[in-house]
Amino acid sequence: MSTRIHHPGLRAKVMSAEQAAAFIQPGTTVGMSGFTGSGYPKAVPAALAERITAAHARGEQFQINLHTGASTSTEMDGALAEAGGIALRTPFQSDPTMRKKINAGEIEYIDTHLSHLAQTVWNGFYGPMRTAVIEVSAIREDGTLVPSSSVGNNKSWLDLADQVILEVNSWQSEDLEGMHDVYYGTALPPHRKPVLVNSPSDRIGQPYFECDPEKVVAVVETHGPDRNSPFKPADDASIAIAQHLVEFFEHEVAQGRYDERLLPLQSGVGNIANAVMAELVKSRFTGLTAFTEVVQDGMLDALDSGTLAMASATAFSLSTESAERFNANAAKYRDKLILRTQEISNHPELVRRLGILAMNGMIEADLYGNVNSTHLMGTKMMNGLGGSGDFARNAFTSFFLTPSIAKGGDISCIVPMVSHVDHTEHDVHVVVTEQGLADLRGLSPKQRARKIIDTCAHPDYRDQLEDYYQRALAGSGGLHTPHLIGEALSWHQRFLDTGTMKQG
Amino acid sequence: MSTRIHHPGLRAKVMSAEQAAAFIQPGTTVGMSGFTGSGYPKAVPAALAERITAAHARGEQFQINLHTGASTSTEMDGALAEAGGIALRTPFQSDPTMRKKINAGEIEYIDTHLSHLAQTVWNGFYGPMRTAVIEVSAIREDGTLVPSSSVGNNKSWLDLADQVILEVNSWQSEDLEGMHDVYYGTALPPHRKPVLVNSPSDRIGQPYFECDPEKVVAVVETHGPDRNSPFKPADDASIAIAQHLVEFFEHEVAQGRYDERLLPLQSGVGNIANAVMAELVKSRFTGLTAFTEVVQDGMLDALDSGTLAMASATAFSLSTESAERFNANAAKYRDKLILRTQEISNHPELVRRLGILAMNGMIEADLYGNVNSTHLMGTKMMNGLGGSGDFARNAFTSFFLTPSIAKGGDISCIVPMVSHVDHTEHDVHVVVTEQGLADLRGLSPKQRARKIIDTCAHPDYRDQLEDYYQRALAGSGGLHTPHLIGEALSWHQRFLDTGTMKQG
Repeated sequence: MSTRIHHPGLRAKVMSAEQAAAFIQPGTTVGMSGFTGSGYPKAVPAALAERITAAHARGEQFQINLHTGASTSTEMDGALAEAGGIALRTPFQSDPTMRKKINAGEIEYIDTHLSHLAQTVWNGFYGPMRTAVIEVSAIREDGTLVPSSSVGNNKSWLDLADQVILEVNSWQSEDLEGMHDVYYGTALPPHRKPVLVNSPSDRIGQPYFECDPEKVVAVVETHGPDRNSPFKPADDASIAIAQHLVEFFEHEVAQGRYDERLLPLQSGVGNIANAVMAELVKSRFTGLTAFTEVVQDGMLDALDSGTLAMASATAFSLSTESAERFNANAAKYRDKLILRTQEISNHPELVRRLGILAMNGMIEADLYGNVNSTHLMGTKMMNGLGGSGDFARNAFTSFFLTPSIAKGGDISCIVPMVSHVDHTEHDVHVVVTEQGLADLRGLSPKQRARKIIDTCAHPDYRDQLEDYYQRALAGSGGLHTPHLIGEALSWHQRFLDTGTMKQG
Repeated sequence: MSTRIHHPGLRAKVMSAEQAAAFIQPGTTVGMSGFTGSGYPKAVPAALAERITAAHARGEQFQINLHTGASTSTEMDGALAEAGGIALRTPFQSDPTMRKKINAGEIEYIDTHLSHLAQTVWNGFYGPMRTAVIEVSAIREDGTLVPSSSVGNNKSWLDLADQVILEVNSWQSEDLEGMHDVYYGTALPPHRKPVLVNSPSDRIGQPYFECDPEKVVAVVETHGPDRNSPFKPADDASIAIAQHLVEFFEHEVAQGRYDERLLPLQSGVGNIANAVMAELVKSRFTGLTAFTEVVQDGMLDALDSGTLAMASATAFSLSTESAERFNANAAKYRDKLILRTQEISNHPELVRRLGILAMNGMIEADLYGNVNSTHLMGTKMMNGLGGSGDFARNAFTSFFLTPSIAKGGDISCIVPMVSHVDHTEHDVHVVVTEQGLADLRGLSPKQRARKIIDTCAHPDYRDQLEDYYQRALAGSGGLHTPHLIGEALSWHQRFLDTGTMKQG
């Protein structure tokens, strides 16, 4: 038996994933661990999916409502979606099967600011949470739990659930112990107090989860890797976007608006975010900090090079190679990394106080700086907005990044009007494509349109955007935000009709 | 000479408004006081408008960039807009002449979260602030300043401006002294500290503005009332909306989700907000608190009745009658009212911590709970979003309120897709019209649509909305947020073409 379970009472509750999954009943709400494919339970969800499939085969109904930290993996979201086992899903997902079922109208999905979910579940209007299924890296002798590679909402789910299933994953490095900062000071209003983080490196919590051993109904041992995010070499567009950003940082330092250490960085997930870190590593900047959600490969490299002095996050999202490197050197990284609960990693109070430089990807932006992070052609959910709103709204500077075109040029990521708004004109300070960087701060809507067309749009679409904008200036009802309201979404309709946004 | 100017050096600088206005030069940035028509300078703006008009008559260019707290009055925004004297305006306005010029494309306007402007001006990318023109109610012997009926951004403008013009308005009650709480603890990152307000009644600042007397170039004496907001008896729709809200509060108390004192209230400006206060006064609720921007007539009544124990705000917006009542009894209200800088009254950190119940008006909402607070038919600026975003995003519960129809029924305020988004689906918890209250918390987009059509839409538009929604369910690209993207804004186009959103 695993040497990771040091509490005798909990050691006595070790059982198979199938036996554990039998504790989860149809129609109940389950809180599971998992954030950007790390720290999710590796065995119980698949066993639950089998149980659900078997129930369906017998003609019985069996669905659950599922809350997590953020995205998980094919083994979890994929398996449960495939089994038709999910009625309601919050707050974020990125699994292909689940996405398909959401867009087919078979799963109700609530795309939620990641800092907001815990308080709403605590407040009770999602109903009671029957079960928590949480991956940990060890159980200590006193029953406290060493978190694994993500913290997410686990503290809340452990506190709220009537019964708890623990997965102890021996694949996770034992040296994770001590890296986490679990804050037990949150409360519902009117009992809230200031969150006393004044720098990304401040610790305010404890390294372990509390959990009443009496509530634990099952302990399952696993040895499985996190979902790996295959590392792709940065493409030319990502490198160009990253270079524009680093140049902008240099410019702001020269203007005296950022100091040499910049401000704490928040960086979204994906190849552009990795490219930004790679460009920073190449730059003269050093001793920076990150206050972000996710530690990706690029951030690990930046910690190695000293470009980053430390990073605060709630989860990892690593390639196989980087995960191996991290596991082999976790003790070394422990002094430079803090993993917090997502309420704290994304807390609006802290994002505002620390003055974050928030860099997030997007699907499209429009002439006036509104951003769509979630919906393809206004109706299809891609993943979700995740923490982008938590960071962008309260950031000191908010950057939104995308290549200027997609689908081989048939989609312009700069459009007359976005087909869905996740970030309003008020929250979008800088738009960056491989074509250039548009600093929209202090600009009126028309001034923004001028800059976005000239700086960010792909040359193949620039004339078409200019044509729309000029006709809007001539024919708009009002000239504060000029639009031809009957034509504003015509680019999306054209793509749906003809397969391209390009005019014939 | 006024007995309100107790500093000898500043008494020596008393001059006429015309003389003071001569200090303001073309092409410069001016920070003026004023928030929802209170505490704005009464004389210098008009004198400046005359100076600008004369310059234009001589063929000279003369425009300024103008920052305030929020809206001012016809004497100020109206006069300066009429004179063609404004190049750029932030962060909020509500003047008819200025609105017309914004929508004619003659004034660049940046609609800004009210808690965000000060930090962006401090950070410097609006360029230097040459002049501050600030109304105060008295100058003390040591040169500190007693604020008047709004605090707004005055502390920042006094600190930032190269030169200061003070207006000392003897119409303002002398008993305002001691009511204000001016916080001097703000900073730019990385030097920010927690803002230690744990309850709406906590004071963290001082009752006076600091201002180096050397920077003061002119002192102008005035005796003029604030813009009055004529009190209109509540109409049936406002009363119905207010009743739905109070019923909802009762329901949440019964469910154990709010306690008997509710949570601190934020209430926007206008007749619906007054009606909400009136219904609360009639209800059994007592000893409530407000943490809000503006004290309106209804809030004064609620303080009188004990419904509200105290209110924290940044400004007044009173009818003539209520202003007289307030001035006659200011000493009495001083223990129950705190006027703060707008950075603090609207601070995201505090809105989140205190758990505000945020109630704001809107222009329209769509099936999925996106809200437009600012743009008529997607292009014409009405006023601005003001503090609605500061409060709604970080609120414990965010409510958006509107009658279900406008323009005698030719506009439905519930539409398939809003023509501009100020508050995304993620930030809109409850939508209320006179028809009913839709609690959208914990609902997916399609569940929200069902509830909004059934509960909030006007009967004249319900079939039309249902028809759109059913056709969207049948023909949408994706079924997460069903839309017919080519038709989503057709209601607005129909109104522009035919004068009504109703189908022929």
